[in-house]
Formats: sequence, C-alpha cells, structure tokens
Amino acid sequence: MPVNLPELDPSQLHPVAGVELGIASAGVKTPGRRDVLVMRLAEGSRVAGVFTLNKFCAAPVRLCREHLGVRGDIRALVVNTGNANAGTGLDGLARAQRICDALAGHLAVQPQQVLPFSTGVILEPLPADKIVDALPDAIADLAPTHWAEAARAIMTTDVAPKAASRQVQIGGKTVTITGISKGAGMIHPNMATMLGYVATDATVSQAVLQKLAKWTADRSFNSITVDGDTSTNDSYILIATGAAGNAEIADETSADFVAFRDALLAVAQTLAQAIIRDGEGATKFMTVNVEGGKSWDECKAVGYAIARSPLIKTAFFASDPNLGRILCAIGYSAVDDLDVETLEVWLGDVLVAEKGGRAASYTEEQGQRVMQQAEITVTVKLNRGSEAATVWTCDFSYDYVKINADYRS
Amino acid sequence: MPVNLPELDPSQLHPVAGVELGIASAGVKTPGRRDVLVMRLAEGSRVAGVFTLNKFCAAPVRLCREHLGVRGDIRALVVNTGNANAGTGLDGLARAQRICDALAGHLAVQPQQVLPFSTGVILEPLPADKIVDALPDAIADLAPTHWAEAARAIMTTDVAPKAASRQVQIGGKTVTITGISKGAGMIHPNMATMLGYVATDATVSQAVLQKLAKWTADRSFNSITVDGDTSTNDSYILIATGAAGNAEIADETSADFVAFRDALLAVAQTLAQAIIRDGEGATKFMTVNVEGGKSWDECKAVGYAIARSPLIKTAFFASDPNLGRILCAIGYSAVDDLDVETLEVWLGDVLVAEKGGRAASYTEEQGQRVMQQAEITVTVKLNRGSEAATVWTCDFSYDYVKINADYRS
Repeated sequence: MPVNLPELDPSQLHPVAGVELGIASAGVKTPGRRDVLVMRLAEGSRVAGVFTLNKFCAAPVRLCREHLGVRGDIRALVVNTGNANAGTGLDGLARAQRICDALAGHLAVQPQQVLPFSTGVILEPLPADKIVDALPDAIADLAPTHWAEAARAIMTTDVAPKAASRQVQIGGKTVTITGISKGAGMIHPNMATMLGYVATDATVSQAVLQKLAKWTADRSFNSITVDGDTSTNDSYILIATGAAGNAEIADETSADFVAFRDALLAVAQTLAQAIIRDGEGATKFMTVNVEGGKSWDECKAVGYAIARSPLIKTAFFASDPNLGRILCAIGYSAVDDLDVETLEVWLGDVLVAEKGGRAASYTEEQGQRVMQQAEITVTVKLNRGSEAATVWTCDFSYDYVKINADYRS
Repeated sequence: MPVNLPELDPSQLHPVAGVELGIASAGVKTPGRRDVLVMRLAEGSRVAGVFTLNKFCAAPVRLCREHLGVRGDIRALVVNTGNANAGTGLDGLARAQRICDALAGHLAVQPQQVLPFSTGVILEPLPADKIVDALPDAIADLAPTHWAEAARAIMTTDVAPKAASRQVQIGGKTVTITGISKGAGMIHPNMATMLGYVATDATVSQAVLQKLAKWTADRSFNSITVDGDTSTNDSYILIATGAAGNAEIADETSADFVAFRDALLAVAQTLAQAIIRDGEGATKFMTVNVEGGKSWDECKAVGYAIARSPLIKTAFFASDPNLGRILCAIGYSAVDDLDVETLEVWLGDVLVAEKGGRAASYTEEQGQRVMQQAEITVTVKLNRGSEAATVWTCDFSYDYVKINADYRS
C-alpha cells in the first residue's frame, strides 16, 4: 500500500481554464481498461517539456521532441498505458505518427500540434489501431473536470492515482495549477520523470515556461528514485493556457514570477513524491537531505548514492538502524575530495555519525525509535559549503521483487 | 544455494611454498566461530595490493595502504570476520594498530610488516582484545595446507567458502598460484574487491607484481556486482614468495610473463566469479559481454548498467525474457554518443534486438528457453570499435531482501 498517499479527492482538483480531458478504453493490454487519455488545449496555450536522456528513448518521446521543436502551438496530447512503444525502431515511430495523424484529423489541427505519450512494457509493438479506434470515444468524453479520471487512465504498476492542485494570486488574478503523474518502478528520472503533466491557466512567456519546466523537474521528478533505472519514456509536460488573464509572467525578478514558481514547484513536488509513496513494494517514505555542500551537484550525488543503495533500502524495510551502510554509500558517492572526518549523519533528530565514526551520544534505542516511523528523514551535513539538495526514495521490500518478477505475466 | 559453485576440495588447493595459514576462534561476533586468520610469509616475499576507493574506507585498509607504502617486506597478514572496523574513526585505527603490534611481537617482525583486514558489520567498535587474545592459537595452527580452513574463516554472509588453485610451468619450474576470497553482498568493487588473497611461489619483480594486481583486479574482482554497493573494506592482495626458484619475472614482453599473467587471471576470475555464484539470494549466474566498443571503459559502463539494474535482475530471477529492460539499461549507461540503431543484443545464442528494436527473427519461445538456464550470457555488440569487457552478476531474489533485512539480527 502507498505510504501516506491521501486518497484522491476529485473535488480538490481545480479545473484549468483552457484544458479538457477525455478518457476511453482501447484495450491496449487489458480488455475494458480505460487506458487512453486525450488532453485538448485551447488556442494560444504554451507548452514546454523535458524528456528522458535514455538513448533508447521511446518513439513518442522522439516525436514529442520533434513537434515541440517545430512549433510552439501544441493543441492536444494523447497518452496510452499498457505499452511503452520503446525499443520498437522505425516501425514504432510510424505507429506513434499514425495516432497523431488521426487525432489531428478529429480535432482539425496539424499532426505536429499533437504530442503522443506511451507507458507500459518495452519491446512490444504498439497496437496503434486499437488506440486510433478509441479516439472518438475519448474526444466525446472531453471535459475540464476529468483530472481524476485522467490520473487513473495513465497508471501502470501504480497502486493509486496521483494528482495535485493549487491556486495562487498573481497580479490580482486567481491562477490555477493542476497536474497528474504516474510511475512506481523504473524510476530514476534523468532530466525528466515517468509521466507528469502540469497545466496552469496563467499567462507565461515561452522562455520562462521552458526554464521553469527544467527548474521544477530538477527539484521534483529529477530528485526521486525507486530502483535506479532511468526509464525510456520519462516525460514532464508543462502547459500554460493563459486563460487566467494575468499580465504575462516574463520577468524572472518579479514577485509574480516567484509566487508562480513556488506554487508550481509545490505541485510538481507533490506529484513526484506521490510516485515514491506508491513506489513498487514501498513501506517507508525516505527523505534524504544533503546540506553544506560545495555545489548542488555534489549534494545530489551523495543523496542519490544513499537513495539508490539496495543495502540501505532493505535495512529501512526491516526498520533496522544498520547505519554503517549510509556511511558506506556516502563514501562511494562520486565526490572526490570528501572529508569523512568533518561530515555528520542524522537520522531524524538523532545524530548518528561524526568525526568519521559513530557519534558518542548515539544509542541503538534512538535509532530504533526513528526507524519504526513510516516517514524517515536522513540528513547529511557535509560542512564544506552552503549548497543543499533533497532526494526522495522508498524502501526495498519483498514486494518490489514480486512485482517485477511478475510484471509481464 | 550458490549457482554451480563446486564444493571445496582441499586436496585441489596446492600449498604455496613460503606461505603458512593459521586459524583461531576469537568470538568477534559469534562465540566459538573460527573467525581469525593469520597468514605468515617467508622472508623475501613480495606483496602488492589494491583497495577500495570508498572514502569511508575501513581503518585496516588505511593501515594496509600505509604499511605497503613504507616498506615492501610484508611478513604477515591478519584477518577477522564479524566486524568491519569501518566508520570507527581514530579509535578504529588504534584498535587495528594494536592487533598489528601484537602479531608483530609474536612473530618477531616490525608492526609495519603486518597487514590487517576486517570484514563484517560497519559502525561497531572492533573487539580488538578478543582478536589479540586469539593470536597465539592462530600462530600455533600455522601450516601450508590450511587454505580451505582459511577460506572458511573469512566468510560473512557467504554460504560457501571460495578458493582456487593452479600450477603453471615458468622457465622450467613449476609455479603454484593459490587464492581465497569472500563476499556475497555489498559487492560492486571499485579498484578492488571484498577480500581476495592470491599467493604464488613465483619470483616476480615488485613492479610487475603491483601492475598485475591492478590488471587482474580490473578483469576479475572489479568486473563483478551483486548490489551496486562498493564496500568500505574491499582488498585484493597478491603475494609472491619467490620459493619456486624461477628466473624473476620482470619483462612484460616475455613468454614467462604471459604464462604467469594468464594463470593468475584464471585464479582471480574463478575467485571473483565464486562471489557472484554465492551472491546473496542468487539463483542465476549472469555473464554480460560487451563487444565492439570504442574503449574498454565504455564496454564496462554498458556492462555494469545491465548488471546493476534491479529490473533486469528481478526479471532473470523470474526467468522472464522481459528484454526491453536490457535495452533500457543500455540506453541510460553513461555512453554519450551511443547509436541504438546499430547495436545488437543477444541472449545466449538468440539475437534479441537490432536496428533499435526487436529482431524480426526473435520469438518469445527462444527467449524462454535461454531464461530457464542457471547460467545465462547476455552479449551486447556495440559495433563501433574493437574493445570488449565482461561483467558478472547474479539475479535479484526474495532472498536478497531477506538476507539484508536480517543481517544484523
């Protein structure tokens, strides 16, 4: 069961003016499953995206990059679950293109104004015809209120749907930010995430939107890991319809920019953390704070070394304060000139290690007390600079093995 | 149970003239366990070592580096299991030093002629007094024939002891190479391994010995992974007593050098592979060959991306040819300009993927047939150069989680 992931309350998901969502059943993998999502965007919407750096990136990711490169006026997104259309070569590209063509025809836009997405098993041909056949039903279902249904439609091994919503005042106007995400395994995003879609009715310049896509991804989806596997299909899409009527956010020093950026980050972080709370087999939610580094990159490297370690993750599963494993991971993280004598390791509010060894004040009882909790924070103070970074992860349980040994069957 | 690891046959382990081994019980962690090993080397022996690059390297590793740096005439090694003496700060160094002092006193050599080693739990004070008290028993037990007992003495979570032995003709003399190793978890050696000791009676120059320690480590202990965790205590020690009486091996272009190097590599690879066969929870032994690369480093990076992936390792545990996960791992390995269109992926003798997608000739039945085997070879042909590297790993099972959730209790 997900770790402290509140049940989705559709009434808490504010519609975003200019965005409609429609769901249909194509039976890509499971007959009857509502597995296709279409998002229609009002004319004038701006879209920015960041995508996986995996060289075997999926066919739809390649088309997304191409379409976003050609023109800014994206009018629709189409997502299927059940098949990733990755490792499918030129044939996979043709199939993704066919879906864009069909949706563009229905909506009377150009195929390059459509962004396609797929998630599911890799190396299998995408049943594009089934998806094309389901498009009319999805279009008939289009409504601004279907965010919760959309979150459900894009799930794979997720146990629970993931969504977040927030409203903020920008220049006297109420601006809405609502997003959905999916993902539970093959999670170690690199520049992007599994699938994350965040829409706002704010008016934002294209340059600021693209910059914020990267900035918020780095601090949310790019700061999580379940298993260290960077997916072939990671995509994070930011949509700004401009329907809120605020003065365009273009100046990065303005109070409006800061208010909008912070609200956007809060939504993106909630969505990214939801993926970890629903991580495959997760029983614990772990926050790894690394402070006092010389750079954000080195803090992130230390954080990820801890968050990726199967030895640490199994110890957390067992609620066993086997904390030497944390020191070990810090020691092999890629920070070349690290001085182990000056750093500190904290488990919750308990000082565990300092001066290269166990803290004199530490007792096994203190460690046990923190390890029993469902949400645990590990803090590493590098004490050599002023930068900080946070990484979120989950523990490693029998169920992770079970889920991934069974996934295709 | 270990994967195809033959039961240790003490009669197959040739003694190495100039090396004696003695075992005793100190009760470091488990009362009555024979957990301390002393190796005594004849005068004139040469020793080379490679050690973990983990910044939180253990106190004994620091002393080993120091002692090997000060003088070449090492006369004894002392190893304990049950406690790693890592993450123990200055106090840990003092405790390791006390053991060296005591052993040096008994053997009438200098403390700097002793190399100490520890393996076991991290972040706990080493009970050095218990080990010091056990030294006389270990010395009384010294004999050239105790290799099998030594292999057993250094085990931690290992299910089976690991040793290998080989004889080769060098310049008309019979030269013996015998070694032992231990390790099953926290295995992702970086420049070294868990604990590996290889001794030979060959006469080898110090320069060649040091070079061969690195060269053979890179192709054996540094080519394996169980869980991606680089230990704090990895050490690989090469001993050459010179008792065989061959002409010194100092010329790297000589036939003697090649014959010796190849025999040494065979012993080191057998020992390293034994660690994988006994990997925590292992049910499959996987060989990952990466060929046709521009450099050995890039081949190794692709091999390790595959060998580390929890998704691939759980699929192998399930005998499920979910081979898209292999493409995914190749895609996120750190090879920047990889062309996925030109590479090939083979599972055993079956072509799985080419031209960026699944091979036209591939069938699920072919994949299933190979996946049922206990030993599976994955071959990646990068088709862009002439370099190659091999990495060995095991699958990821329920028992890995069980072993590591229970390890301290």
